[in-house]
Amino acid sequence: MEPKFEQLQERLAEVTDLQAAAAVLGWDQTTYMPPGGTEARGRQMATLARIAHEKFTDDAVGALLDDLRPYEASQPYESFAASLIRTARHDYERAIKVPPAFLTELYTHAATSYDAWTRARPANDFGAVEPLLEKTLDLSRQYAEFFPHEHIADPLIDDSDYGMKAASVRTLFRDLRDQLVPLVQAITAQPPADDACLRQHYPEDQQRAFGEAVIKRYGYDFDRGRQDKTHHPFMTKFSIGDVRITTRFNEHDLGDGLFSTLHEAGHALYEQGVSRVFEGTPLASGTSSGVHESQSRMWENIVGRSRGFWQHFYTQLQDTFPLQLSDVDLDTFYRAVNKVQRSLIRVDADEVTYNLHVMLRFDFELAMLEGSMRVRDLPDAWHERMESDIGVAPPDNRDGVLQDVHWYSGQIGGVFQGYTIGNILSAQFYEAATKAHPDIPNDIARGEFGALHGWLRENIYQYGRTFTAPEIVERATGSPLSFEPYIRYLRGKFGELYSL
Amino acid sequence: MEPKFEQLQERLAEVTDLQAAAAVLGWDQTTYMPPGGTEARGRQMATLARIAHEKFTDDAVGALLDDLRPYEASQPYESFAASLIRTARHDYERAIKVPPAFLTELYTHAATSYDAWTRARPANDFGAVEPLLEKTLDLSRQYAEFFPHEHIADPLIDDSDYGMKAASVRTLFRDLRDQLVPLVQAITAQPPADDACLRQHYPEDQQRAFGEAVIKRYGYDFDRGRQDKTHHPFMTKFSIGDVRITTRFNEHDLGDGLFSTLHEAGHALYEQGVSRVFEGTPLASGTSSGVHESQSRMWENIVGRSRGFWQHFYTQLQDTFPLQLSDVDLDTFYRAVNKVQRSLIRVDADEVTYNLHVMLRFDFELAMLEGSMRVRDLPDAWHERMESDIGVAPPDNRDGVLQDVHWYSGQIGGVFQGYTIGNILSAQFYEAATKAHPDIPNDIARGEFGALHGWLRENIYQYGRTFTAPEIVERATGSPLSFEPYIRYLRGKFGELYSL
Repeated sequence: MEPKFEQLQERLAEVTDLQAAAAVLGWDQTTYMPPGGTEARGRQMATLARIAHEKFTDDAVGALLDDLRPYEASQPYESFAASLIRTARHDYERAIKVPPAFLTELYTHAATSYDAWTRARPANDFGAVEPLLEKTLDLSRQYAEFFPHEHIADPLIDDSDYGMKAASVRTLFRDLRDQLVPLVQAITAQPPADDACLRQHYPEDQQRAFGEAVIKRYGYDFDRGRQDKTHHPFMTKFSIGDVRITTRFNEHDLGDGLFSTLHEAGHALYEQGVSRVFEGTPLASGTSSGVHESQSRMWENIVGRSRGFWQHFYTQLQDTFPLQLSDVDLDTFYRAVNKVQRSLIRVDADEVTYNLHVMLRFDFELAMLEGSMRVRDLPDAWHERMESDIGVAPPDNRDGVLQDVHWYSGQIGGVFQGYTIGNILSAQFYEAATKAHPDIPNDIARGEFGALHGWLRENIYQYGRTFTAPEIVERATGSPLSFEPYIRYLRGKFGELYSL
Repeated sequence: MEPKFEQLQERLAEVTDLQAAAAVLGWDQTTYMPPGGTEARGRQMATLARIAHEKFTDDAVGALLDDLRPYEASQPYESFAASLIRTARHDYERAIKVPPAFLTELYTHAATSYDAWTRARPANDFGAVEPLLEKTLDLSRQYAEFFPHEHIADPLIDDSDYGMKAASVRTLFRDLRDQLVPLVQAITAQPPADDACLRQHYPEDQQRAFGEAVIKRYGYDFDRGRQDKTHHPFMTKFSIGDVRITTRFNEHDLGDGLFSTLHEAGHALYEQGVSRVFEGTPLASGTSSGVHESQSRMWENIVGRSRGFWQHFYTQLQDTFPLQLSDVDLDTFYRAVNKVQRSLIRVDADEVTYNLHVMLRFDFELAMLEGSMRVRDLPDAWHERMESDIGVAPPDNRDGVLQDVHWYSGQIGGVFQGYTIGNILSAQFYEAATKAHPDIPNDIARGEFGALHGWLRENIYQYGRTFTAPEIVERATGSPLSFEPYIRYLRGKFGELYSL
């Protein structure tokens, strides 16, 4: 074993441990921390982030990475050693370009801005966050300027979706949009589905039990994870053996908690499936925002909102909620959980209109970064674009420009495209999996997920960050990213549902 | 403001943050972590401990402490600045004597030993931990040798009970023992109390609700803390605004969970009561093991097992458990929670015999460190000493030498004396408090704890580590540590209970 490679691993393990510790503190902050802990917790997390950055950007790490070039070249591209050195170098070269003082300013501003947003949204007060958003825009531009780029948004997009650029996402979204808009028009010209059955009283404990039974069937390992309640659901990872999810329950809307659980479980299946060999290294993580989202969306939508899935699980659901569902037939229920409608809130949007919400945000990010749109013009622009794209405009900013936490958490640019890339990839991966295992749809209708989960683990999960997103897509599906499978999927499913 | 003092504060805050993060990880490990997280969690906590030690023992900290001598001398002894510099120097001078490599070995061994103990105790297998305990003894001796000392146990005792030495504890315990043994004999010559009422079925949820209602009355602030379940109850602190306790419930023994909650709440009241000015510094903590234990024992026993306490709370308890307690009168219940008996397990022991359990352990620690007792002789020695001191000997090692986690967690020496010092101080502090506020016993009988809590906060809690244990005892009670109040307390209470 190359001694310098061992040294590199030791240093990376230290950084990974600090990041994991920060993640535990973040999880605790949103699940169990009493209110009195807030102030100190902010400081503790900032300290961990700062020390992790200091340790990672230490010159000694750079020297090790330089010294290891010959060793890396001697190892196969997809070997653990070559992959770890390559990935660490990629991260290192990005990290050293960002001055620690800038990061401190960014973290402090992000905490202030997030805190202000938590009050501004319920108060419908965009004015209260507007100056903070101006600063966020400025900081995002400053951050991007640390890196070479064609478009100012490129470094921000590259951070989460390696290999994508403003120009390529723009083209992709334009082409996808050309397909989606007529589909939305065709569907919304039909009578809407009746989803009243979802809006009855569903006690939380039974909702939790049902959701957890489903994700256990998916293959989510509760010995290596757990589910807790938070205001905003998320997945977080402290090690490959400890991948947790959170959810929320609405006792008057069955869909909220259930699909949130399935969504976060999709993220968690990815992280639980990474090769144990990668523990304690930067390889032990999903490879990009888009590929990660492809897993949450696949398990939530392609699987969890499929007719086959409900053919298997609906009886169990009826048994869980006999009062609410014994008179509701499978077809009505299936239509309810797949209701397409022109709506205001991205996270509640159906599979078809969802991407139009994302595109609006992506376009606004580019426009703000380019300087062609001002922060103060956001509310009006939001209103107009919703009207023209979705056909319904928010009555206020609370359910308009204030609805998503992302921009108020310290970054404008690069934070939304992954959602639609994820939708696109979910169908591309699913099509490849069913090509390899044609029985997958029948399996799902029997509540069996082993073949699908196995294919995903083998072709995507196990590799962690060994391969970049473009590489993993090419390897797993035999072709580069393409939205054709996604359009085929939507046309097939919703064509049947709405008799198009 | 002295700029170097600010620099010192910054460096200490960083170390405090790392220690707090490690504490959060430890809390999570015992409360909610899934089993799969174990291995990585051990590594993460070791990394945080190592970095905290590195940061704290940095030469720059030593230089700051040297440079700040004139500033410290210019400030009043009990001022924030002088106290912080003094306390940090004390900790620093101890920390730099311990080589990092030794600490790493100690932590690794402690984790291995603890892990082995968790299996050895249920299996009644002392042989499995004996070699590990040999190594623990060796490491404890090595640790002590880093410091000047008269007795090899002195540095270990000094770490947790500053100002005490093997010789002084030995004398104290001998004198106390001379008083306790005849008292135990006199009590156990009487008919035993009937505690059958405690051993009925008590559902966990109601136990929890009752215990939490009591500690809320005590003054435990749930906005700055919370209670969770663990196998072994403990108190932990992440900041002055986040002081948590844990408990366990036994549905067939009411006393287990209730008195554990009151005990840990006593520790927590101390930590919640530290001056907020000390946040992020080493002053924000209880001053010694003995003073800390004085608070847990006071709120558990002197308050929580007093007749006055139950005069107020027993009706509420009967309302909570009408099936179990409506036919049990107050006097019977009061006698049940104060039953004195010759028993095997320290943590379940009554107030009178408890100290004999501690003294046995303390004496064995000294003997092992001195080399006059071998680890392999522990089981037999335990058996003999239990027989002679308590009058009952364990049928196996599980309930004998394997019962306490302490020695199996990496240290022999200094880990037990604090429990009896705590008992002694609990009575000394309580006597001083009631001298200042003679109504305290009547207050307790009305469920009012403000005067007692206020006196403790003012005379002990707020200072954190500003004063050492000997200093705080002298300041709060007007005299040095003395067991006379404790003996007076025991004779008064149990003399009345057992008509001596």
